[in-house]
Amino acid sequence: MGRTSNARERILGAAQSLMAQRGYSALGTAEICKEAGVPKGSFYYFFDSKEALGLAVLDEHWEAQRADWDRVLSADAAPLERLRSLFEETEAGQQAGQRSCGTVTGCMFGNLTLELSNQAEPIRARLQHIFEAQVDMVHEVVSEAARRGEIAVSDPREAARAIVAQLEGQVLFAKLYNDSEQLGVLWRNCLAILGAHAAGAGTAA
Amino acid sequence: MGRTSNARERILGAAQSLMAQRGYSALGTAEICKEAGVPKGSFYYFFDSKEALGLAVLDEHWEAQRADWDRVLSADAAPLERLRSLFEETEAGQQAGQRSCGTVTGCMFGNLTLELSNQAEPIRARLQHIFEAQVDMVHEVVSEAARRGEIAVSDPREAARAIVAQLEGQVLFAKLYNDSEQLGVLWRNCLAILGAHAAGAGTAA
Repeated sequence: MGRTSNARERILGAAQSLMAQRGYSALGTAEICKEAGVPKGSFYYFFDSKEALGLAVLDEHWEAQRADWDRVLSADAAPLERLRSLFEETEAGQQAGQRSCGTVTGCMFGNLTLELSNQAEPIRARLQHIFEAQVDMVHEVVSEAARRGEIAVSDPREAARAIVAQLEGQVLFAKLYNDSEQLGVLWRNCLAILGAHAAGAGTAA
Repeated sequence: MGRTSNARERILGAAQSLMAQRGYSALGTAEICKEAGVPKGSFYYFFDSKEALGLAVLDEHWEAQRADWDRVLSADAAPLERLRSLFEETEAGQQAGQRSCGTVTGCMFGNLTLELSNQAEPIRARLQHIFEAQVDMVHEVVSEAARRGEIAVSDPREAARAIVAQLEGQVLFAKLYNDSEQLGVLWRNCLAILGAHAAGAGTAA
């Protein structure tokens, strides 16, 4: 029976879409099942709890985003160019989201960190793992740019964290103003954080 | 009757405390009244709706925070020193919050932006007003530092917005790791955004 065989995937998809629009706390499992078109009773066949579903949504979303980040950040280009591509893809992703659902929904990981991290320890732990992996990936590119003498940072890991923080902060503004164009400043701010105002900017701009 | 004369203030205080811990969507008016110690029926005497209460909480919180920011940013000190004081007070405020309620609750304005801005237009508009005022205040100090030749930024307003974005992003990390010490990096990152790695840092450090 086609409808049940992919019921878990449809619950995940519906939860991800509803969470992007309205957060986690506002949702009930009945609403998620209705959106997914699966019987309400089947929810607990697939997930032990709403929290288990939340973790599965995070995992699935991160798996897709990590593949995108890996592709962009390991491309055959200079490190600063790869970093700039990451911001351009982030902006394009928010623009696509805005076109498809009418509003900038922001970053699911940032949204859930501010909504939930001090209420649900398993979700906090998963979000820590995801953000740590993001910082690791940016750190690697920053270190490579530093070795090539293109940037001047005293602590590449702290710079990588500042870049991810800047990304989250600017995505917050994009959501606040419902305007993904806000993200156009990311690259200039990233260069500033990396101390690449002049030299690095010239190389990669 | 003492209990009713300050009932509105107690509802506001309870709502602010509960929203800091658990966000907005997860709360009901009955729970807020219970926490405030006021009869449930009196809620709608003071507030037209839960959203009206949310707006009043935002207004009250911003009134207090704006007074703090005004005091720090108009102090008798060099502009970069005033900016550094703002970050130190922000870190101290998150530390005090962590001591009093056990967890880093983050920035109420950032929390509600990510939780609510694409669901409730009146709340989005209020949050835009608040963040715009924050950027205005930082912009003024950044412009003063630029006039004094202490920093090198091509667009002082964009730099001010990047500083507020960095603040929100690092507060997100502080909440994620439940560790207000994360905010110790704010000043170095702010100097980097302002292109003040060497000269400005020497002046103000």
